[in-house]
Amino acid sequence: MAPRLAVLAGGGPLPRQVIGAARAAGREVFVLAFEGETEPAAVDGVPHQWVPLGAVGRTLGALHAAGSEEVVLIGPVRRPSFATLKLDWRGMQLLGKLGLRAGRGDDRLFQAIVGELEAEGFKVVGADQVMGTLLAPEGLLTRAAPDAAARRDIAQGIQVAARLGELDVGQAVVVQHGLVLGVEAAEGTDRLLARCAELRRDGPGGVLVKLKKPGQERRADLPTIGPATVEAAAAARLEGIAVHAGQCLIIDQERVVERADRRGLFVVGVGGRG
Amino acid sequence: MAPRLAVLAGGGPLPRQVIGAARAAGREVFVLAFEGETEPAAVDGVPHQWVPLGAVGRTLGALHAAGSEEVVLIGPVRRPSFATLKLDWRGMQLLGKLGLRAGRGDDRLFQAIVGELEAEGFKVVGADQVMGTLLAPEGLLTRAAPDAAARRDIAQGIQVAARLGELDVGQAVVVQHGLVLGVEAAEGTDRLLARCAELRRDGPGGVLVKLKKPGQERRADLPTIGPATVEAAAAARLEGIAVHAGQCLIIDQERVVERADRRGLFVVGVGGRG
Repeated sequence: MAPRLAVLAGGGPLPRQVIGAARAAGREVFVLAFEGETEPAAVDGVPHQWVPLGAVGRTLGALHAAGSEEVVLIGPVRRPSFATLKLDWRGMQLLGKLGLRAGRGDDRLFQAIVGELEAEGFKVVGADQVMGTLLAPEGLLTRAAPDAAARRDIAQGIQVAARLGELDVGQAVVVQHGLVLGVEAAEGTDRLLARCAELRRDGPGGVLVKLKKPGQERRADLPTIGPATVEAAAAARLEGIAVHAGQCLIIDQERVVERADRRGLFVVGVGGRG
Repeated sequence: MAPRLAVLAGGGPLPRQVIGAARAAGREVFVLAFEGETEPAAVDGVPHQWVPLGAVGRTLGALHAAGSEEVVLIGPVRRPSFATLKLDWRGMQLLGKLGLRAGRGDDRLFQAIVGELEAEGFKVVGADQVMGTLLAPEGLLTRAAPDAAARRDIAQGIQVAARLGELDVGQAVVVQHGLVLGVEAAEGTDRLLARCAELRRDGPGGVLVKLKKPGQERRADLPTIGPATVEAAAAARLEGIAVHAGQCLIIDQERVVERADRRGLFVVGVGGRG
């Protein structure tokens, strides 16, 4: 039998899905839930413990006590200000060791967290290893397909997202017929799409492109789309969504495709860059 | 006496200022005002003609009829969708000649407009040549100065803005202690700042960095800040603003400095890249 799986659960619907999939596959699961981040529904009926975000010592202690060998990190965590983060002693040690200064980019932070867990003897696995169906496949998923203009917009979006990703800024870009309507930084994809609904020009076109950043720790923090992303893209009257094949998670792929088909949007997995 | 100056006036307060400065210097001015773009106050009491944006033939005809040799383009124009733009015959010719497709980046568009005016025999001058005090000087303008953390944020913002600028995406970036809060695309700096007011982390820090894009036509479309930018940056609780020295326009520099001093913000002209 597979070893007991510990889930460090961030926010959003993804942890619940991963926990459910692991348990459905017969795995024993223990959840570390973060106060103010994890949705309570995610840990309903599942062995779990709540910890504050900065309580690194308590988190590691709970992981050891749970007897887990494998750890999966899933779901976004709002990056706190270091001024409000209540670090325990171990957390301060970690901060000192990493030489982190407040506000450093996400990539280095997640790499540091994964490194620390590995130094403690845990095997850190990606959510896609627990739940194989999560990764975006390559190619077209929907009935609608990108036309020539949309394919140009996708290519342009990949170029912009890749450059931004190198600088550890955001993962998502919206392009309408050659014009970059919006670029994601700290606001997240939902707010980017809400803004682009107002910024779009009259006429057709518009694609959301979402790529993994080159330095992004794939076991901790992959870009994600889900049914809500499709709805937000439809509300912004975009024609479709291009996600990084094999590098991007799709929450509830069946519903994503069903909703996209109903709205006439395309969803396509693109090569982009590893 | 200097030849009659034609002003192609976009939106915002800048055209009025440039027109006022030119007339105060004794120059005769004729304004081409664009319907739905130019503020009516800008042409109040000044010889002018209103034209629709797409009426390229009428615009050129009016410029010739006005007997102007020098033309200045000043103030932003909301880029229309080509679907709604009512192009006259000359406009369609121009579009065909340029091979423009809808939504092309701003840089190429402004270069094309300047090229077309020059081909018609006009001398296109930058707003800063009409009104020398407009360009951001190098160095500190305010009592407050960036501390070490702000200087690091400025350096990071320059790096991000420069990369984005190469792709003809936006000119402005907000960085708070190493974290890129927001990146400007089609929404403009005011909306970027409004968003960053909500995205900022607790604690100090935060700078707006605004650079000229490398391909940006400096006679038609330089990045601009003004008193309203200072107020928006203060509302987002930023510590200051770094603008591209010699490549960025400051509307009403005296008031910019006075307001920044009152709010405790710094404004600094930085080298960036030409």
